[in-house]
Amino acid sequence: MTKIKELRCVIGGCRYSLDEVSYTCPVHGEVGTLDILYDYAALREAVDRDEISASKRNNFWRYKALLPVDADSRVPPLAVGWTPLYDARRLADHFGLSRVWVKDDGANPTGSLKDRASALVLARALEAGFSTVSAASTGNAAAALAGLGAALPEIEVLIFVPASAPSAKIAQLLVYGAIVLLVEGTYDDAFELCMQICQEQGWYLRNTGVNPFTTEGKKTVALEIAEQLDWQVPDVVAVSVGDGSIISGIHKGFCDLLHLGWIDRVPRLIGVQAEGSAVLAGAFAAGSSPEEIQRQSVTTIADSIAAELPRDRAKALRAVRETDGAYVTVSDDHIVTAIPKMAQLSGVFAEPAAAATFAGLERALRTGILDPGESVCLVSTGNGLKDIESARKSVSGELRVAADIDAVKTALQTVKVL
Amino acid sequence: MTKIKELRCVIGGCRYSLDEVSYTCPVHGEVGTLDILYDYAALREAVDRDEISASKRNNFWRYKALLPVDADSRVPPLAVGWTPLYDARRLADHFGLSRVWVKDDGANPTGSLKDRASALVLARALEAGFSTVSAASTGNAAAALAGLGAALPEIEVLIFVPASAPSAKIAQLLVYGAIVLLVEGTYDDAFELCMQICQEQGWYLRNTGVNPFTTEGKKTVALEIAEQLDWQVPDVVAVSVGDGSIISGIHKGFCDLLHLGWIDRVPRLIGVQAEGSAVLAGAFAAGSSPEEIQRQSVTTIADSIAAELPRDRAKALRAVRETDGAYVTVSDDHIVTAIPKMAQLSGVFAEPAAAATFAGLERALRTGILDPGESVCLVSTGNGLKDIESARKSVSGELRVAADIDAVKTALQTVKVL
Repeated sequence: MTKIKELRCVIGGCRYSLDEVSYTCPVHGEVGTLDILYDYAALREAVDRDEISASKRNNFWRYKALLPVDADSRVPPLAVGWTPLYDARRLADHFGLSRVWVKDDGANPTGSLKDRASALVLARALEAGFSTVSAASTGNAAAALAGLGAALPEIEVLIFVPASAPSAKIAQLLVYGAIVLLVEGTYDDAFELCMQICQEQGWYLRNTGVNPFTTEGKKTVALEIAEQLDWQVPDVVAVSVGDGSIISGIHKGFCDLLHLGWIDRVPRLIGVQAEGSAVLAGAFAAGSSPEEIQRQSVTTIADSIAAELPRDRAKALRAVRETDGAYVTVSDDHIVTAIPKMAQLSGVFAEPAAAATFAGLERALRTGILDPGESVCLVSTGNGLKDIESARKSVSGELRVAADIDAVKTALQTVKVL
Repeated sequence: MTKIKELRCVIGGCRYSLDEVSYTCPVHGEVGTLDILYDYAALREAVDRDEISASKRNNFWRYKALLPVDADSRVPPLAVGWTPLYDARRLADHFGLSRVWVKDDGANPTGSLKDRASALVLARALEAGFSTVSAASTGNAAAALAGLGAALPEIEVLIFVPASAPSAKIAQLLVYGAIVLLVEGTYDDAFELCMQICQEQGWYLRNTGVNPFTTEGKKTVALEIAEQLDWQVPDVVAVSVGDGSIISGIHKGFCDLLHLGWIDRVPRLIGVQAEGSAVLAGAFAAGSSPEEIQRQSVTTIADSIAAELPRDRAKALRAVRETDGAYVTVSDDHIVTAIPKMAQLSGVFAEPAAAATFAGLERALRTGILDPGESVCLVSTGNGLKDIESARKSVSGELRVAADIDAVKTALQTVKVL
């Protein structure tokens, strides 16, 4: 893996070689997540963006040359990434923006953007010969690891979840054959136990914010947005934020492309948080450093972005600050009403955490954070089918009728179809 | 639309021009569904399969030249089709077959193969200037019409469902902005009312088996299987069957390719039905004609393939008979256990109707209908996230532990991970 130049701590700038560290910075601890930095000059010589654009590989491995795996390394077989980017004119009209695109990452194999991180982490695990990979998660990351791992017989997937996790989510993990540990405690308890057993047993840890390679998987969504727009990036990219790992990945992807000279600027990044889980938005508004951030108890309908102590807080704050972006917050009510609005204006049915981004754009426009002249890409991070219960709260209006044509006509008159 | 030569009744061979009929054969009634036949000699001259293979259009409109819409016609914007075809070696080993592929059509925008039919029907409706399109359905077809229609402001989507339909399925329709009529009656009542109001009001009817263009949308899954295998088709294609419209579409797609000279044979088609909804399997075993088929009351966990009187029975029987294929039936228990088996061996999480195909292959091998030397493509018609309740019935085995490392270790010993 000679193309990786070094791993650099996001807090102190401490530099390590690939052999020196496994996860976070030994000096700065958990908040000291690491950047995977490449020899960009060498990559610029070796990789041609037009060759990538000509690739028939309809998944994110079209960027294998820009990822921390060897060219001939085996990768999980499911088709992750290269998801549709929709030119959403009706959304643009709705917002009064010049141009809006929706990146539909709910189209991934297990229904969320997290498939990108899991696929990459599993490829690394295969390279290194690990036979057990573990994560603590109640949601999309766990489903992604279980699903992507299912097609790999040599890898056992072990998931730690709080015992309070919804049984539908646990069902999906079991369907994929993961070993599921229901921890009688909080998410943090599950997280700590997962870390501890991985360290003791020498298993590979997929946890967001801890394993720096998850960012490398997530960065591919930025590579795709750039390529799908013929390397002319939008003014703004907006995405919802919980642990902060997705916005960090998007930032890293655009930075890599800038270092390669394939794009001429990094878009402004707007992070959207739920009002009830707004640790990063609060830190951004207060001008706090990542080290100052304290755990808060949180509650929101958008479970995928509930985070008491965002694990990728250092990278996530940097992503917004360095790009002249912003954090905005939205209420749960606003999130719920955004689900059908977004579906009806774009055709994309999003889970609450993804619809939160739609709500956040409305708010960013109202508060002047977003200028109507800007072009915006909305990253939809999860499929609406993942949380049909929340969708149900967002809609009503079905017409109950007797099995009789006159009853049908009367009903249709009430909604002015007749 | 000069490339369409004629519409031909599948029962009597009666021939019509596009202007003469709207839906089924006026002579043979509802069972007399129509084939859309092209001027294949002209198509052979005009269309080059290598040009299609070089297309960067990552959706089924790459085959627009082979579909009943004009080259410059507007189409719904969502990315339907061009779904992954997985070379599923572990499935092949499991079945003891030489080669198995999984065509993952759950990756479509609303999560099922039905998106293909809805996208095509909506494109036809746009061409003809219809402003209302309607369908009767409890499931995937309705979601597909509502979802694909959501991105089209000029089209109103009207869905008729029996009032007993699951509220989660109704929620999805409402999220997409469809007008939903809950009919206090059976599926047949909803179907008849939908037909009647469309005829009265001049609205466009999407109903499977009635609208012959639905088959043209579904045929694209066969075109993709052929192209993805470099025009070397598998020996067998297996798919689950309810109304019979999908297997009919697959048959039509391969027949079109044979007429074009792009493939050298049509694969054997194996239709899988649930034991509790096996009208076509019964008719096939009894050697009945389509006109002899009677309505039966049915019950199965695989709601997407529950059909009392399969609407596309004539085409669906022909598909199997003409290709030296077969119908097999599987129990609901077998379907439920197939969900995790298929997910763990292929990474594809399928809804019950799609997992039924997996169960059907096991049965076809056991009964000698399938020969171990044959290569098989399993068409997975719907995403498992559509029916998480059924998936939950298929699995257990989560390990409940105290928030304590020793408890974790003890639990992992019970499953022999430690």
